[in-house]
Amino acid sequence: MTTPLRIGIAGLGTVGCGVVRTLVENAELVAARAGRPVEITAVCARDPRKNREVDVSAWPWVADPVLMARRDDVDVVVELIGGADGIARETVEAALIAGKDVVTANKALLAMHGGMLGAAADKTGRSLRYEAAVAGGIPIIKGLREGLAGNAVRRVSGILNGTCNYILSEMEATKRSFLDVLRDAQRKGYAEADPSFDVSGVDAAHKTAILASVAFGTRVAFETVHVEGIERIEAEDIKFAREFGYRIKLLGIASLSEDGIEARVHPALVRHGTPLADVGGVMNAVQVEADPVQRTFFEGPGAGEGPTASAVVADIIDLARGARLPVFMTHTDQMKTYPSVPIADRVGTYYVRLGVIDKPGVMAEVTSVFAEHGLSLDSLLQRGRSPGEAVPVVMLTHEARDAVMTKALEEVASLEAVIETPCLIRIEAV
Amino acid sequence: MTTPLRIGIAGLGTVGCGVVRTLVENAELVAARAGRPVEITAVCARDPRKNREVDVSAWPWVADPVLMARRDDVDVVVELIGGADGIARETVEAALIAGKDVVTANKALLAMHGGMLGAAADKTGRSLRYEAAVAGGIPIIKGLREGLAGNAVRRVSGILNGTCNYILSEMEATKRSFLDVLRDAQRKGYAEADPSFDVSGVDAAHKTAILASVAFGTRVAFETVHVEGIERIEAEDIKFAREFGYRIKLLGIASLSEDGIEARVHPALVRHGTPLADVGGVMNAVQVEADPVQRTFFEGPGAGEGPTASAVVADIIDLARGARLPVFMTHTDQMKTYPSVPIADRVGTYYVRLGVIDKPGVMAEVTSVFAEHGLSLDSLLQRGRSPGEAVPVVMLTHEARDAVMTKALEEVASLEAVIETPCLIRIEAV
Repeated sequence: MTTPLRIGIAGLGTVGCGVVRTLVENAELVAARAGRPVEITAVCARDPRKNREVDVSAWPWVADPVLMARRDDVDVVVELIGGADGIARETVEAALIAGKDVVTANKALLAMHGGMLGAAADKTGRSLRYEAAVAGGIPIIKGLREGLAGNAVRRVSGILNGTCNYILSEMEATKRSFLDVLRDAQRKGYAEADPSFDVSGVDAAHKTAILASVAFGTRVAFETVHVEGIERIEAEDIKFAREFGYRIKLLGIASLSEDGIEARVHPALVRHGTPLADVGGVMNAVQVEADPVQRTFFEGPGAGEGPTASAVVADIIDLARGARLPVFMTHTDQMKTYPSVPIADRVGTYYVRLGVIDKPGVMAEVTSVFAEHGLSLDSLLQRGRSPGEAVPVVMLTHEARDAVMTKALEEVASLEAVIETPCLIRIEAV
Repeated sequence: MTTPLRIGIAGLGTVGCGVVRTLVENAELVAARAGRPVEITAVCARDPRKNREVDVSAWPWVADPVLMARRDDVDVVVELIGGADGIARETVEAALIAGKDVVTANKALLAMHGGMLGAAADKTGRSLRYEAAVAGGIPIIKGLREGLAGNAVRRVSGILNGTCNYILSEMEATKRSFLDVLRDAQRKGYAEADPSFDVSGVDAAHKTAILASVAFGTRVAFETVHVEGIERIEAEDIKFAREFGYRIKLLGIASLSEDGIEARVHPALVRHGTPLADVGGVMNAVQVEADPVQRTFFEGPGAGEGPTASAVVADIIDLARGARLPVFMTHTDQMKTYPSVPIADRVGTYYVRLGVIDKPGVMAEVTSVFAEHGLSLDSLLQRGRSPGEAVPVVMLTHEARDAVMTKALEEVASLEAVIETPCLIRIEAV
């Protein structure tokens, strides 16, 4: 086949420019692999006069991405505008209605409207590809949907937000506070001016919802993903975790059991020496546990121009090669539905840090609350003595339900000698 | 599409039984993902009466795999016989000639005849799939051929033989000798009764040739891969490497530069804390360096029933979904040819261990040979003193060409005070 595949690119920010650059610089290689030329036939962004890293003057400039999506000379619409709604969504919908294939890097769109858009694409036999939406340069969507397609996936867990992983890695390396490191990350360009989407866990939760949908061949609604961020992690938590042989990571976890699907994003203690614990800086990683393959692990850069362009162009080459695949793991008609398991039902172990007044009887009070709830301790650390002063007490628990743990901690928090809000971090055996 | 995809399985050893088991146990899941049922329509192995882990009596038994490959009720021939030539090759050729698609786990066949078989498949539009041939359960062939298809790959390096990695990991953990650990591995089933294919590096070299062919979109002949095994690694090399901050791993490395393709398998010092250094036991891993994605890393089980079945079934589902892809990275017509860079031209740093008589002037003799060849040292370790006795001297060099290093070591070996064959291990910055 020598008919060119004609690409319209909507959005010319960092990622859009990276895609243009890769398609131009690697044009010969892309054509050889695709088996046909891949040609840009239209580009679209808000400001045609903006100074960009790549020259886009060679291609017709379309002001309205929805109009671009309908152009006869565009086979594949590449949506790199971003945002769950508004113009990005309109563009993707217009493209699918017009019978175009779509490639997008838009995790919010996929997490919020993936089910609806996927059904629309599956129904008309169009493709909706989103490799770049999860874990940037790691081909994990393809890895799950195709590479591990013969497996029953039990669990997917990943480090899905490079900003959070950078902040936690730096907090460990430099012993500084969250806010201190965050400001530094903003200066270096590793965190946005408004970092709330990243540090609150919402970005990782978008990606977790998408990963879960692919892994389990179902539609995991974003609203069912439990989300906690890293804002409350303190330098001393990282230090204590380390003493017990753990690192603190923001994990996105989705697991399937007889009870249904549990999907959650929160900071977690991960044992030193395990692959996820060793993922440093802005890297992303995903671990898959499945039958019959058992454990596989994928690591790579999770964001930025090059890694994202790699994923977008891989999707484009797939389309050029003629691949026709379901949007998620199965065609929409074949999707299963599973109950959603609430975070309260999570069973596991916990790290608890309390700020208590160092006086006789405090530990007896705390541990008797735990005992009343049937909670038992694996380890307890109380370092140093400052009679009458505040000291940290750190405990690791045996297995318990989240709901029980939360209830017990509420009672502990109400004790007179407990003077700070207790810090609770789940421990994950990964 | 509801027409079943009809599978004929040739070879019912561990892997063949694993494939049967996965297709049966995950039948519903496989059909949902494939978009159509996947049915076994014929099986074939030497002895129909052998006691197997799965019941294969439901399917027509064909004694001759070549005849099975030609059956009208078989769409996909799954070749799990093994071996570069003989009946395995005949079966694959017969299948392609008969217009069937082929899925195989046969690394020797692909490494030796992949170019010819790939050309035959590409020419007739048939598929030849071999995900299981490299790194078992890790979907690395798909990762390269599709997931990273937009990239110019610079280098692929991997731990591709679980037996060797297990032996080296055990040697480090238990400080025992190669032979001692090998015998133990044989008892545990991690090494074959005849381990020579594994420990000599030939198995890893087969996989390296295949990886290089995919990564660079060319035909890398097995004969051009430089191969060294782990037989000569001693416990003290592992100990010394550790003191310098390294682990010893058997690596398969393929890189593309202006000079051509360098492909090699040999033990290497890999710095602690890098992803490849942390791959323990029987696991496999592959690291890819490419533009624009930069570094990605894939880890998983490299052999065994489950991981291999996972890869074979993924290939089958791909075919059921209708994927038509070039056998290697590009259609045979589009393949590039590159010169092969001999190991003599490798430029890098080295670990050298000498057994010398501890007497005045020895180090001066050794270092002056190095100096004559323009070799400079980064570190030198001589531990303990035993005048007149043999002592080990360990050196790490600065960058040098392999040919220069080899020549210098020949001269060093001929010195009277050097009483053992020098041990040379390349250091790889991964």
